[in-house]
Amino acid sequence: MELLVPLDPQSGMPLYEQIYRFIRDEIRKGNLRAGERLPSSRLLSENLKVSRSTVQMAYDQMMAEGYLETVPCKGCFVADTQGLAGFGEADSKNDMGKRMTSPGEKEAGEPVFSGKIDFSPRGIDLERFPFGIWRRLNRDTLVDDNRELFGPGDPKGEMDLREAIRSYLHSARGVNCQARQIIIGAGSQYLLMLLSRILGDSHRIAMENPTYKQAYRVLKGQGYPVCPVDMDRFGMRPDLLEETNADIAYVMPSHQYPTGIVMPVKRRQELLDWALKEEGRYLIEDDYDSEFRYRGMPIPALQGMDKEGRVIYMGTFSKSIAPAIRIGFLVLPEPLLKAYEEKASFYASTVSRIDQKVLYQFLEKGHYERHLNRMRAIYKGKHDALLGALKSLEDRFFIEGEYAGLHILLTNKKGLEEGKLAALAAKEGVKVYGLSSYFIRSKQNQYQSTLVLGYATLTKEEIEEGISLLNQAWKDV
Amino acid sequence: MELLVPLDPQSGMPLYEQIYRFIRDEIRKGNLRAGERLPSSRLLSENLKVSRSTVQMAYDQMMAEGYLETVPCKGCFVADTQGLAGFGEADSKNDMGKRMTSPGEKEAGEPVFSGKIDFSPRGIDLERFPFGIWRRLNRDTLVDDNRELFGPGDPKGEMDLREAIRSYLHSARGVNCQARQIIIGAGSQYLLMLLSRILGDSHRIAMENPTYKQAYRVLKGQGYPVCPVDMDRFGMRPDLLEETNADIAYVMPSHQYPTGIVMPVKRRQELLDWALKEEGRYLIEDDYDSEFRYRGMPIPALQGMDKEGRVIYMGTFSKSIAPAIRIGFLVLPEPLLKAYEEKASFYASTVSRIDQKVLYQFLEKGHYERHLNRMRAIYKGKHDALLGALKSLEDRFFIEGEYAGLHILLTNKKGLEEGKLAALAAKEGVKVYGLSSYFIRSKQNQYQSTLVLGYATLTKEEIEEGISLLNQAWKDV
Repeated sequence: MELLVPLDPQSGMPLYEQIYRFIRDEIRKGNLRAGERLPSSRLLSENLKVSRSTVQMAYDQMMAEGYLETVPCKGCFVADTQGLAGFGEADSKNDMGKRMTSPGEKEAGEPVFSGKIDFSPRGIDLERFPFGIWRRLNRDTLVDDNRELFGPGDPKGEMDLREAIRSYLHSARGVNCQARQIIIGAGSQYLLMLLSRILGDSHRIAMENPTYKQAYRVLKGQGYPVCPVDMDRFGMRPDLLEETNADIAYVMPSHQYPTGIVMPVKRRQELLDWALKEEGRYLIEDDYDSEFRYRGMPIPALQGMDKEGRVIYMGTFSKSIAPAIRIGFLVLPEPLLKAYEEKASFYASTVSRIDQKVLYQFLEKGHYERHLNRMRAIYKGKHDALLGALKSLEDRFFIEGEYAGLHILLTNKKGLEEGKLAALAAKEGVKVYGLSSYFIRSKQNQYQSTLVLGYATLTKEEIEEGISLLNQAWKDV
Repeated sequence: MELLVPLDPQSGMPLYEQIYRFIRDEIRKGNLRAGERLPSSRLLSENLKVSRSTVQMAYDQMMAEGYLETVPCKGCFVADTQGLAGFGEADSKNDMGKRMTSPGEKEAGEPVFSGKIDFSPRGIDLERFPFGIWRRLNRDTLVDDNRELFGPGDPKGEMDLREAIRSYLHSARGVNCQARQIIIGAGSQYLLMLLSRILGDSHRIAMENPTYKQAYRVLKGQGYPVCPVDMDRFGMRPDLLEETNADIAYVMPSHQYPTGIVMPVKRRQELLDWALKEEGRYLIEDDYDSEFRYRGMPIPALQGMDKEGRVIYMGTFSKSIAPAIRIGFLVLPEPLLKAYEEKASFYASTVSRIDQKVLYQFLEKGHYERHLNRMRAIYKGKHDALLGALKSLEDRFFIEGEYAGLHILLTNKKGLEEGKLAALAAKEGVKVYGLSSYFIRSKQNQYQSTLVLGYATLTKEEIEEGISLLNQAWKDV
């Protein structure tokens, strides 16, 4: 089959995005059907007279979003996306120049490590934080005219900041909401506590397994039965979800923590269908690090596919700005806004109005976008250095979860247990983390030999040295 | 009876404090016994060759603390303080030059009022906030050397700030604790949520009735049965408390909100005795506005009387600095520290590290103390203006809860209902607030004709104009 993609080099839109949009729209319109095979990237690049990497980026994006699937040694096929008629609207608002984001709560309580190199999956690179700008915004905010900022504020957070977040979420994440649906709070843990008060007590909550344990502990702490649900390579399994009798499912579709799984469109729709099947079911979408993708465009939020108000969207600035600023937010669907007013609007905001104002300026003046772009390039450099160095381990390890986020997964091909791998690494002064600690009460899991390697806080040199040491440590595994 | 108080004008300690300390110690040693009558302030001032107001201040302080009682037309007597042997240690550390604090959460959700003068009991006077100093501390904190402040912090809060709070609480409030017992959080509502996770679910909580409704709603929201307990003029009644089968009692001994009742020493001891009677009982002491007293010294915290780790102390900087800074703290007794480590230490701090650092500097450099002293003088001026103006209403109203805090109570002698009083006031453009909204499910209460008049946000002129208008509005009640 031949694809005649009309390309306009003068349009200002990158060629790979033009290819992506054209093919995606063909799939949506039904002109390309499930199971149809696409030309190889080599062939299409020759036909279109563009570089192969340009085509590959477009394909990667569509695979990440679930429009395409690869079958090893056979090629690339249009995925089954039936029932997605309403989907087109939201993510077409997706804008490649902007992105957005979430958590950092993953850091508290991390023990100090005394070895040489620590591949901690927590933490972010603070070296490039625009300290001067932040200081200047603080100074400009703390002027006498702003004295009223010391008075009590809106329980939901400052309106101008909520409006800036709304605008950002809309263009960068395809999230559809009004500012009045946004509630700002001091971090995702607090916001989950607040959300619990809005939802009330009688719910069962399903979570991906493995998952973000801090969220699990908060939800357990609020008294909810939490049902771990196994994932396949597309994410949480809807059949198992249905079996749990849960009425709320907490998921991380853009980049699952810790597996790095990107949930394809079809699975997202299946989860939405699950939510729609009974009154009062909700999905909590934790969009914690969606701004860091190193191939293609950001993947639109699940929230944008939801026309019925069944998705509760959560984001934070902990990963994208700094954990210390303690600002995150909830986007409540309409049906829950009433419950918020009745049950939780008496909770005063947990974020200082001055800090809210500074963040507002940071977003409004374009600093956030510039900072994200800079950090994305920096993290991509580290990511690429890590992948490059890992080639030396490919004979012994599978590599997964790459091209997004701030960590990758490494699985021993012989199935050597994670504790042993970590012990060998420690002897060489390198700290690595097993995946099993992310599991909710599972003694058996398919990740017994998998390690999580975070690279955000390391330099390229440290990453290379670390992998070299690991290569030495694991020479016989 | 004659009291030979040894006074040393050169000691640097104010004369009234010398008198207070001497008589208090005589009572503690048993040299002055319950029921003994003290000389009148006129007589004692003549004997000691000091002004009568000096003696009166010492007496007022002892009355507020429960060491003395007045019997109208008869004089001043030593109160029954038996069983208080262990009490002496803590509050002798009380330092007259310093004071400390709490809430401001009382503000959220206040509707806008369009009349002339609003005697809202919420809000504080922000006109005198040392904006320049706060800005400078921010600027000095946001220097490149402090880059690490953007990384994740201690879940309990920054150690230096906790140490500064410990030191302050010790000298100003007689609170005995280590910095490791202090947990900093974004406001008293969040801290109550966190405390609920530390305490666990199976408790019954007793609260004074009327009380601080926001705290009531948070505790109800956490699923606890909350038992309202009536007060007499000394505060929560221990006999009624015992009947509730509650195992936790939430009290505001220094200045009950909203009644303004100062709990005498004897009642404090009775509550401590109640807590000690069974394993696992606790008192939550909300010390929300103890820094604003306009006669005598601050009253030491109940926590300082507790030798067995049964008091959970709560404070905030919302009233004493500004509601917008969103910083409060818990002081956990030893037995609950373990529970914190097990059940709640995974909650990341809800306060920005930068904000914590700025507050630390504010305390450490003496700005807080100076600010408090200035605000105390300003509020005292408003308080005195209000009391002066209220003389015109004394024929029709009882006045209570004066000399502390930021509001007073006004009760109609004829028992006219609060709604009618408020309606008459509104006609003259003055907004006043009924006390009944502070009650937990009570249709009948002894405050049917009582109004709460806050004065923090008004100028002296507004206060005088407001009372003049009320005098007009209520000329026939």
